[in-house]
Amino acid sequence: MNIGTYSYEEYLHLVESFHGSLAPGLIIGGFMVDLALKHLPDGEFFDAICETPACLPDAIQILTPCTIGNGWLTVLNLGRYAVTLYEKYDGAGVRVYLDAKKLEAWPEVRDWYLKLKKKPGQNAERLMAQIKEAGHGLLSLQQVCVESEKIKRKNKGPIGICPRCGEAYPLKDGESCLNCQGETPYKEVTAIATSSY
Amino acid sequence: MNIGTYSYEEYLHLVESFHGSLAPGLIIGGFMVDLALKHLPDGEFFDAICETPACLPDAIQILTPCTIGNGWLTVLNLGRYAVTLYEKYDGAGVRVYLDAKKLEAWPEVRDWYLKLKKKPGQNAERLMAQIKEAGHGLLSLQQVCVESEKIKRKNKGPIGICPRCGEAYPLKDGESCLNCQGETPYKEVTAIATSSY
Repeated sequence: MNIGTYSYEEYLHLVESFHGSLAPGLIIGGFMVDLALKHLPDGEFFDAICETPACLPDAIQILTPCTIGNGWLTVLNLGRYAVTLYEKYDGAGVRVYLDAKKLEAWPEVRDWYLKLKKKPGQNAERLMAQIKEAGHGLLSLQQVCVESEKIKRKNKGPIGICPRCGEAYPLKDGESCLNCQGETPYKEVTAIATSSY
Repeated sequence: MNIGTYSYEEYLHLVESFHGSLAPGLIIGGFMVDLALKHLPDGEFFDAICETPACLPDAIQILTPCTIGNGWLTVLNLGRYAVTLYEKYDGAGVRVYLDAKKLEAWPEVRDWYLKLKKKPGQNAERLMAQIKEAGHGLLSLQQVCVESEKIKRKNKGPIGICPRCGEAYPLKDGESCLNCQGETPYKEVTAIATSSY
């Protein structure tokens, strides 16, 4: 049993090293990406859409060239456990999703995924065993056509210096950067003197 | 010269392997994360904020335990080239940013970062050499306090089955999943018969 170009055990090691823990969603995610890779549409380049920020983006980043930082992976928060790999020019792609109808055969996976059991009642070992045994059996596939324009990352355009914080920012954001317009996640900011580093 | 726990050359290899190319922003990003790690506030756990989706998230994912999928990395699109590592409980953190005032000493970096030269006029070799020579010299540091509540990923809450697509989704999203409410990136969706995989 392989996941992408890795053995199952190699993949588990990569997950632990990159994601920090053997999250069940990332093991299922490995099978999902593997299945999508096996049904890739023709074309030289593909991009990825992940329909949830939870776990699954890391399976994509481990198993494909698509990452957040290189822009080939787009994370949408649609709340569905699904990944799409698609040809970036014509949008033709394959979507793999965790199929709720296929969960009945795997009760431990069903109870975990649909949150039918609280954590203390879950059996982690049985959950992992069922995930491994089920493999692609939890999944279904769709052909999709992606509206690339809807999710394409916009070009930053010309760069200026924010008159408030003094940092560079895309001028299209307005007369100051978005942070200084109020979208800041910080409540206190203090400079650290250069001499101390 | 080290970047995190890696030698400069090891880091370049990791960048090529994960990000797919030696993007200048990812080399600067390596120095940024390295500087932030050296000024981490006390505390057992830290999370990361990246103020741009371009390149920098990958330096964070390569050099720290924080990834998109495990939720310890939050990407905000504030348009500034900055990373913050902060203690997740009290919000105390360190912010490292590319300091526009320090660019004057490194004209090739300045022209690339502020888009003063078009790509054909850039000298990639000189750019990379200046980035390496400058190292932390392009950067400044701030102490910050993060409003964790503003950026915390919300708990999904109870899970239901979408009456339209039949997939599981967080019930708090409404009577159907967000995809079926119209936020779909797909214009065509066709099932692929199970027998074919």
